Amino acid sequence: MKVRVHVSLKNGVLDPQGRAIHHALEGLGFDGVNDVRAGRLIELDVADTIADEALDEMCRKLLANMVIENYRIEKVAA
Amino acid sequence: MKVRVHVSLKNGVLDPQGRAIHHALEGLGFDGVNDVRAGRLIELDVADTIADEALDEMCRKLLANMVIENYRIEKVAA
Repeated sequence: MKVRVHVSLKNGVLDPQGRAIHHALEGLGFDGVNDVRAGRLIELDVADTIADEALDEMCRKLLANMVIENYRIEKVAA
Repeated sequence: MKVRVHVSLKNGVLDPQGRAIHHALEGLGFDGVNDVRAGRLIELDVADTIADEALDEMCRKLLANMVIENYRIEKVAA
C-alpha cells in the first residue's frame, strides 16, 4: 500500500524557504503569487496490514515536528 | 486560489534522504515499511486569474529540477 504523508508548517510559523521561493518567482517575472509555503512530501510503501495508529505514530515520532508542523496522511490505492 | 505542487524524485534516482528516513523508522521499531521516498510540497496562494501555463512554467523553471524530479500540480478549492 502506498501512503503519502504531507508535512507543512503551521500557520504563523516563519517560513524562510517559502519566502525565498516567493522572491525567486517574482524575480523570474511571475505575477499573481500572493504567498508561498514550503513543506515536505514523504511517500511510504508499507505492508497492507499496517495499522492506522502505526502510521500516525510514525508521523508524530519522526516524520513531522509537532511543535511547528502539521501532517496529513493520504492513502493511495496501489 | 490555492495550488499545491508535489515534487518527487523520478524512479531510479537515488534518494539518500528517503533511505535515512526508512532506516530511522526501522530503528524505532516500525515494521512493514518497504520503501520511503522523500519529496517536497510547495503550497502557493495565487490569483484566480493565473493561467495553467504559468503554473507549469513556474514548476519547470524553479520549483522542480526536471532532470531528476517529477512534479504534479493540484488545485485546491479556496
